[in-house]
This record gives sequence, structure tokens and C-alpha cells, in this order.
Amino acid sequence: MGIVVQKYGGSSVADATSIKRVAQRIVATKKAGHDVVVVVSAMGDTTDELIDLANQVSPLPPGRELDMLLTAGERISMAVLAMAIGNLGQEARSFTGSQAGVITDSEHGRAKIIDVTPGRIEAALAEGAVAIVAGFQGVSQTTKDITTLGRGGSDTTAVALAAALGADVCEIYTDVDGIFTADPRIVPNARQIPRISYEEMLEMAANGAKILHLRCVEYARRNDMPIHVRSSFSDKTGTWVVKTEDVVQAGSAQEGSPMEQAIISGVAHDRSESKITVVGVPDKVGFAAAILQALADAQINIDMVVQNVSAAATALTDISFTLPRADGQTAMTALARLKDEVGYERLQYDDSVGKVSIVGAGMRSSPGITAKFFRALADAGVNIEMISTSEIRISVVVTESQVDAAVNAAHAAFDLGTDEVEAVVYGGTGR
Amino acid sequence: MGIVVQKYGGSSVADATSIKRVAQRIVATKKAGHDVVVVVSAMGDTTDELIDLANQVSPLPPGRELDMLLTAGERISMAVLAMAIGNLGQEARSFTGSQAGVITDSEHGRAKIIDVTPGRIEAALAEGAVAIVAGFQGVSQTTKDITTLGRGGSDTTAVALAAALGADVCEIYTDVDGIFTADPRIVPNARQIPRISYEEMLEMAANGAKILHLRCVEYARRNDMPIHVRSSFSDKTGTWVVKTEDVVQAGSAQEGSPMEQAIISGVAHDRSESKITVVGVPDKVGFAAAILQALADAQINIDMVVQNVSAAATALTDISFTLPRADGQTAMTALARLKDEVGYERLQYDDSVGKVSIVGAGMRSSPGITAKFFRALADAGVNIEMISTSEIRISVVVTESQVDAAVNAAHAAFDLGTDEVEAVVYGGTGR
Repeated sequence: MGIVVQKYGGSSVADATSIKRVAQRIVATKKAGHDVVVVVSAMGDTTDELIDLANQVSPLPPGRELDMLLTAGERISMAVLAMAIGNLGQEARSFTGSQAGVITDSEHGRAKIIDVTPGRIEAALAEGAVAIVAGFQGVSQTTKDITTLGRGGSDTTAVALAAALGADVCEIYTDVDGIFTADPRIVPNARQIPRISYEEMLEMAANGAKILHLRCVEYARRNDMPIHVRSSFSDKTGTWVVKTEDVVQAGSAQEGSPMEQAIISGVAHDRSESKITVVGVPDKVGFAAAILQALADAQINIDMVVQNVSAAATALTDISFTLPRADGQTAMTALARLKDEVGYERLQYDDSVGKVSIVGAGMRSSPGITAKFFRALADAGVNIEMISTSEIRISVVVTESQVDAAVNAAHAAFDLGTDEVEAVVYGGTGR
Repeated sequence: MGIVVQKYGGSSVADATSIKRVAQRIVATKKAGHDVVVVVSAMGDTTDELIDLANQVSPLPPGRELDMLLTAGERISMAVLAMAIGNLGQEARSFTGSQAGVITDSEHGRAKIIDVTPGRIEAALAEGAVAIVAGFQGVSQTTKDITTLGRGGSDTTAVALAAALGADVCEIYTDVDGIFTADPRIVPNARQIPRISYEEMLEMAANGAKILHLRCVEYARRNDMPIHVRSSFSDKTGTWVVKTEDVVQAGSAQEGSPMEQAIISGVAHDRSESKITVVGVPDKVGFAAAILQALADAQINIDMVVQNVSAAATALTDISFTLPRADGQTAMTALARLKDEVGYERLQYDDSVGKVSIVGAGMRSSPGITAKFFRALADAGVNIEMISTSEIRISVVVTESQVDAAVNAAHAAFDLGTDEVEAVVYGGTGR
């Protein structure tokens, strides 16, 4: 029996009762013969409370000190979880990110893991203890200061430790049963996906599926570390995120299952973006670049970009793009400063848009997917505002009020549902 | 201008408002030209809340994990304090005990400091930053695990850092103006002591004065580090704790002050002890030793011990001793097991006693102090139950209800008061 890394989010360790329940699951895994390493987030709302406290003394706390403060959250949850496990008769030792050997760069608040040297974890496992590790944190290689990893940090810690330890699997525990073909709150007959490839999961995560963070999936893909996303409230098998070959093989092995991967794996949606249109841009070399450079200088990541064909009569074009809604104000300010230089007519800001994407490795070899998708949307009366595609994904931007209709239309068109209706709540994980 | 170490207790950093006030004091000290190192306790009730949480998952949490948990408290307060200082335009960097080089043994919950290697603190000071250090915590030299220092730990951290850094002074901030000749809640005209020797302060602390912990004063005495006990609510000079020569010199230098040290420096009292009497012990060699060994085996520190002269007719004697009230039940159980072996008659337990002590280096050279003290108690109608003396202290055990009368009588007899009544609250510090 090999090493199992388990990650529990803040909602799984929200209070003493939850922590005791998680402790029992960990002890059961250990008793089944595995070496167990647990990565844990801060309890419930702890992080928000600490941020509130920081804001009471400083409008813009220095990153170094904010990281020092926030890492107290995991320190509390990991120590209490270790105590709860000890109370069940199983030795457990907690380790900070620094003690666990999570070495990062020095970018406070969004540090990147550059090395993992888990010597103390290996020693604890060799002595029969369960190792509990603080998620979301590490130590800077150069300054030796404590860092935090930013969004998705705890999941990424778990995958990075699993890879460094040569674990058999990285289990990500959450409050749903796994990854679904669509959000069950929108599509009542959405089906749990048993296996999905890293590439498809990346597209799902990048386009609004909130269960796994992009960054953690990328780390797993680079290190070929299987992720098992499952519920901390049940013992059911969840969704395995694995390399493409393993998705297909597993499909072949199952009796009565198709020999090839499903064409479409799931439908993702995202309501967190806004759309900005720069209207009446002179259609000349360099003007689009100037606009995009201004946004990059403002540290704004834009998502989809569309430039309309210019009407020859006017030699003017429109440039539309989507971006995180939280960055909308900053972007509008940056673009307003460009008005004289670029000479565009006006800016349009639309924060009632949504993005709907179909994702599936099978679309590589299946023509007509785009047509089928768009036909389904048209039949449902959904108007497409923008389109973007990758090799295994097609995304459209629609009016926010039509997102649900679009998701349901796509889900039905590609026959993704089951006959049963799952009674689950499809929620996001914290960090 | 040299290095100043300042220690702020939990009540001084209880909330954001208090932290901002403390930040202003620190910045003022820095602006006056000093290098400033600040040692801070956990905010207000944080430690109690964390212990409550631990007890919800485990009746007896492992020491290693409890230390990991509790050290989150100082991590929060130090980071928030650093932010508040930063918000005033002064760079501040927080450091855990481990980062500050506080090296301890491995006794979780009551670790002893065995070395201080403050390289990162010195680097921060050299770069013009204020260094904020978590009190009460360190890192084990052998296991590299996080440790806590137990009671008096934050004060001891401050003195230890001050000694290692070669600081000019270690300032201990509290909620009173300094050390008083007696508890002003009991003696309204108690006077603040401007200077007191380490030895006298040790006797005061060991006999009930709660402002400074014994351990911190001992560390200061061994390293000849001056302590300045003062209020975090005012800029008044507090009480300096220094070596004996400096007490006398300062006295001589002041115009109109006596050339010699006061005979008695203060009156301490302690209501935290109980008295146990073993009645009818056979007056034979080894029986008293057996009783004391039983208490030592039960990890109980006894304070005063009195054995009465045996009545020749019976060859029986009584042995009385005082001990922390919290250990009373354990001691009675340990002694009950000895009944057959020792053959004493019975045990008497009295938890309504109090100890009153007069402390003063001057009593070395002044005869008649004991007589004067006992006369004052007799005149006040106070009955003495036990007596114990050191070279610079006389302690008596009295009925708890007579403690206030005894303190006042002693205070008046040695003329310790002022004409003014100080309006202060004489409270204990946390840790």
C-alpha cells in the first residue's frame, strides 16, 4: 500500500464536529494500510475574519505581513485536526508549509511553488504517524519569509506534495460527489463524470467549473499525478482526473461502455466576467495592440477577444473582450486614458454577460460539433455575442439571463444527462 | 542611541484600536532614534479561545500540537501590529520565535530557552525596520518542533532577546504604572517604587506580586539586563528593576533622598495557596522525608514547610506546608496513600489561607524588623499561622480574611505610603 495524499477544504473542517468527522476518515484510510498525508485549509471563515482584522489597522497591508497573518488560519486547523486524530489513538503530526518543505518564490499572496523537499513528512510517515500539512503556504527560497500561494493554493499544495512523495493518488475532498457534466443546480439530470482527462479538466476549470483550480490541475498534469475528487460526506467514488490514455482505457475495460471517449465531457459556465467593447477604433496597424498593452500594463488578464471586420466605408472597427468582472473599473479607467492616442469613438461596458463552454477531447475527431452546439442554442432562443474555440472546447458569450437556457440546451443536445436527478449542491471550493 | 526591546501583553493588543495605539508608541520610540524590537503576546482572549477549541476535539491534546495551535495567537497579533506600524509609514517586519532565533529544549508547554541567535532581527534593524517578535514561543534545538515557554513566557522572551541583542533596556508594558509598595486595591496610599533590585523583585514575584514573572526577573538578573516596567496607557516613568548597586546609586544621586536604600521595599501578598497539615506524625527519622518525597513524586512544588516541636509525652509531631491551591486535591490523594506506611493520625486541608511578605534588601543590616512586623500584625489583630524567612524577606501565613488587614498593617508600620492615593488598578499580566 502506497502513500495517499488527502486535501480537505475549509468547509470540511469548519468546526470541531466537522474536524472529528474528517479525523475518522483519515484514521480509516491509515487503518486500510496506507501512509496518509493530509493537506488542510483554514477552518470555515477564518481567512475572511483575519483579512477583516488586517483591514481594521491598514487599508493596504504589506504582502509579507498579510501572508504571516493568513497562515495562522491553517496553523489552527492543522493542529486541531492532529489532536482529533490523536484522540482516536492514531499519532498525527502537523507541519507548516515551511516545515513540509514547500519552497516558493517571493511573490507574497500569489507565490509559486518552485521545489518541494518533504524530508520531515517522510520521516513522520516512516515512524507510522499521519502527517498533517498546512495548505496554501510555503517559505520563500531567497528571503526565508512565509508566503501564501493565492487562489487554489491548498489544492496545489496537495498535488505538489503528492508528486514529491510519489503518492499513488491525490484525493481532493469537497462538498459534492465529484465533477459533473454540468452544474446540477442548472441541469437537474447532470451526470457525475467517472473519469476525465487533465486537458478536459483544465478547459472545464478555466471556463467556470469551480471544483478544481486550474493551477492544481496543471501541476497534476505536468507530474502525471492522478487526482480523485470526492465528497467528504460519503464514501462514494468521485471523479478521477487522469491522463487521456487512462480515460480511454478505463472506458474500454468497462462492460457495455463505448470503446471511445465521449465526444463531449461536460458543459461549463461562468458568470464572473464582464464584456468591454471599444467602439469605432481606426482599423490601422498597432491600435489593437495599444489597447491590449494598456490592459496588460494594468495587470488585467483578458479572456476572449473579438475584432469585427471593419466596414470599408468607415475604416473603423470594434474590439470586444471579456475580463474578470472585478477588474472592470480598472480596465475602463486604463482605456479612457487611451482615447486621444487611439482615437476610438466610445467604450461600452456590459456586466450582464455569461460564458457557456462545451469541453471534450472527442471533438478533435468529430466534425459538426460546432454546428450542433449553435443549432441547439438557436433552438433555445439564445443569442451568441462572442465565440472562442480551442482544440477541445467551444465557448460562447451570451446574455447572463440566457446562461441557464444555453447550458441546458447544450447538455441535452449532446445527450450528457442521466434519467435520475442528482440531489447535490454544486458549490465552489475556497482556496 | 541603542536598542530598546518593548514587550506588550495581551491586554495592550486586545483589539485593532489598542494595536493602533501601541503602534504609535513604537513609532515614537523609533523616531527618537532607537532601534526597536517589540515582543508581543496573543490578542486578548485568543489563547483561551484556542484552548477551548482544542478541548472540543481532545480531552488531553498532545503537547506538540497544542504548542503548534497556541503559537497561532502571537502570529496573528504580531502580523497585525506590523501592519499597523507600516500604516504609520515605518517599516516593520514580524518574526516567529523560530525565525527570531529563540532556541529551546523540547519540553512542550514549558520549554526553557537555551540559546538566542537573533541574526534575522539584527538584519532587520540594520535595514531600519522595527522587528516584531512573537513572545511565548521558540523552536526545539533537537526536534525542530515549535515550542511554547509556559507562564511568563512573553516577558522572558523579551528579556532573553534584549540580552542577546545587547539592548539598553527591556521595557515591559502593562496596564499599571509600575511596581507598587503594595497592591493599591488593598492599600490606597501605596507608592510606586522607582527602582528595585533584581533580588527584591524576585522575592516580590515569588510571593504574590503578579506584574513580573519570577522567571523573567531571574533571566534579567543573570544577564544584568535592566527592566523598565511601565504603563502602555501613559508616558510616565515606571519602575526600574536593576542590580542592587544601581538602586543605591540612584538613591544617592537624588537630592534629598536617603543615602541608603529603604529598609523595606514593599509588601507582597498571595491568595493562591492552600495549607495542608499532617497531624500526629511519629517523630522518627525519615518520616518527614517520606511525606515530602510523596509530594515531589506527584510533581507538586511546596512552598513553606513547618514542623512543630514534638510533645515528648506522645513522640508525635505535626507537619504543615503550603502549596498551590490547584494542586491541593492531588496532594491530599498522594498523602492518603501514605497513611499506613507513615502511620499519621489525620490530614487537615485549609484553602482559606493567605501569605503576606515584607521584602527589602535593607533588612540585612537592620535588626528588629521581624519584631516590628509581628507587633504590627498583633496590633491589627492578625493571627500568624506559619512563618518563613529569607535574607531579604519575611513571610507569614494568615487566615485569608485577614490578608488585607495584615498588608495594611505592615505597609503602615514601615511607613511605605504616600500622602496621595493612586488611582490605579493593580492587575496581573497574562503570559
